[in-house]
Amino acid sequence: MTIKDIAKACGVSVSTVSRVLNDHPDVSRDVRERVRSTVERLGYIPNNSARDLVRTQSDNIGVVVRGRDNLFFSDMVNTISREIERRGYTMVLHFIGSDDDEVMAGAILEREKKLRGIIFLGGRFDYSPVTLSPVGVPFVCCTYTNCFGSLDEKDYSSVSIDDYETAFQAVKTLIELGHRRIAVVAPAIHDRSISELRYKGYRAALEQNGLEFDPRLLAETEGCFEMPKAYEGTAKLIESGAEFTAVFALSDTNAMAVMKALEDRGRRVPEDCSVIGIDGLTVSEYSNPTLTTMVQPVEEMGRQSVSILAGMIEQKQPCCHLRLEARLRPGGSVRKI
Amino acid sequence: MTIKDIAKACGVSVSTVSRVLNDHPDVSRDVRERVRSTVERLGYIPNNSARDLVRTQSDNIGVVVRGRDNLFFSDMVNTISREIERRGYTMVLHFIGSDDDEVMAGAILEREKKLRGIIFLGGRFDYSPVTLSPVGVPFVCCTYTNCFGSLDEKDYSSVSIDDYETAFQAVKTLIELGHRRIAVVAPAIHDRSISELRYKGYRAALEQNGLEFDPRLLAETEGCFEMPKAYEGTAKLIESGAEFTAVFALSDTNAMAVMKALEDRGRRVPEDCSVIGIDGLTVSEYSNPTLTTMVQPVEEMGRQSVSILAGMIEQKQPCCHLRLEARLRPGGSVRKI
Repeated sequence: MTIKDIAKACGVSVSTVSRVLNDHPDVSRDVRERVRSTVERLGYIPNNSARDLVRTQSDNIGVVVRGRDNLFFSDMVNTISREIERRGYTMVLHFIGSDDDEVMAGAILEREKKLRGIIFLGGRFDYSPVTLSPVGVPFVCCTYTNCFGSLDEKDYSSVSIDDYETAFQAVKTLIELGHRRIAVVAPAIHDRSISELRYKGYRAALEQNGLEFDPRLLAETEGCFEMPKAYEGTAKLIESGAEFTAVFALSDTNAMAVMKALEDRGRRVPEDCSVIGIDGLTVSEYSNPTLTTMVQPVEEMGRQSVSILAGMIEQKQPCCHLRLEARLRPGGSVRKI
Repeated sequence: MTIKDIAKACGVSVSTVSRVLNDHPDVSRDVRERVRSTVERLGYIPNNSARDLVRTQSDNIGVVVRGRDNLFFSDMVNTISREIERRGYTMVLHFIGSDDDEVMAGAILEREKKLRGIIFLGGRFDYSPVTLSPVGVPFVCCTYTNCFGSLDEKDYSSVSIDDYETAFQAVKTLIELGHRRIAVVAPAIHDRSISELRYKGYRAALEQNGLEFDPRLLAETEGCFEMPKAYEGTAKLIESGAEFTAVFALSDTNAMAVMKALEDRGRRVPEDCSVIGIDGLTVSEYSNPTLTTMVQPVEEMGRQSVSILAGMIEQKQPCCHLRLEARLRPGGSVRKI
């Protein structure tokens, strides 16, 4: 089995096969995929030693994932991984806890693995130029921006939804269905991060619709997005005796935990209480009832993050910011009252 | 900031800090974690150039994940990633489709990334010695064995649960609760893989308890574990008019889709139909009702896979096979009839 056999089987030239095997960008996606699948099907293993000799740089891209057990991020890693490989890079994946410092983790990874670039999958919204000084390669903030920080827009790239606006739309959906007493289950409201932004979107939707915020309808869940915390928070809310007809949860898994806590205490969803989330996971489509939620465009966010990073690495393109839209996925967890 | 500052802050010697930074195994986990967290907290970035000069090999371990969107594998990747890093290796993660050839993908990755070893996360159960000839480094089959193949036990390592026995236990649980008409939703029954093994466990549990198998109670879902397929399979089962009081699903996400299909057609779980799964995901703990399932020891499986692989790489240890036990997680999705 030689490179000529592959070229013949694909109906392309030997040099095209070579370009694909060496990850050159100037091959159409179509041809690239045809060659790759033929290589796999025929079991051809390229001899890379010559290529490795002329390579002077690593082809590593670091992906620092903040917050373990985040189903939304699991989907995202899958997409990002495919895109990184498709472009001929190697993904170096690094998981950190939700309280860990992603910048420092990224900087250490950069030195240890000679990274060409970094995708931060989740992170703080309040960087300063000093915070980021240890990072010496291009990077993209995936799922967040620096809206609470002091970074210049020209100094970082981001791909995200508008968390404030998405939360606003979720709560507006409930208000339009007649809900006036809307509770919120939020990890934190002053974390200068995703949770604060979404909480603010909730507050704004209430205000713009002439509804007063009732602090008894807020369940803070110790700064974390884990399902047991969201469950406990909802349980306390119910036990407090506060009246509400709907709950806004800041993520799909949290919304599933909210529904569970309600049902376990004899409140049917949506008959007795409506629930809405943010994310759009497959698994929440199969909850009982199907969760009504704001869907984040996971594939697009992952694809664009890698594309922007590759542009910064290969063509020295300037930093850029991409805002993608979340859309409502109607389900059975909300009702008109 | 020098290595001396780190040593002082941790109350250990400079050589201990150096050993941690260079990933030597002879440091207790406790000390290792203390040093690492101090390094991160103080923002110390080690100068690796000297180390890199003396390194002659890559430290890459490949993890080939078969089947996208598998929540069970997402948890496992997280654990495996932590263990690989803890031992000073770099994880090279590669996702392939559930119909792709993991051995060929692993062999190509091995050449391209100069892997030291491979963990196959999911794969076929029917390798022959020829199938595996392209792989030239130690490897561990994580979550499966070669029980349908012709490999010698001495030629591969594995970490898995007993799929046949676990399915047997799940179905036995239903039988002990009085169920006689037990349906099964299975991706395939002749795939010489995980699905066939679990299906056989189901059949054996019926037989050993004097229950006849009724082919009308089998829903095959086109060879795949995706939730929409399990949902459709269950829907067809219900529409066929076949009578059953319980369903055995081969995974947790499939069991959640089964519950959804039942509820959508007016059958309450567990009042009208019991449902049991295999996996033990967090998310199925928060389904309505909580899924009764056989829990796989994810953390242990991930940890042991890396440990066995490291032993094979570093100490030339012989291949070995580890069978771990799944245990019943009682939930609200089954009832006595």
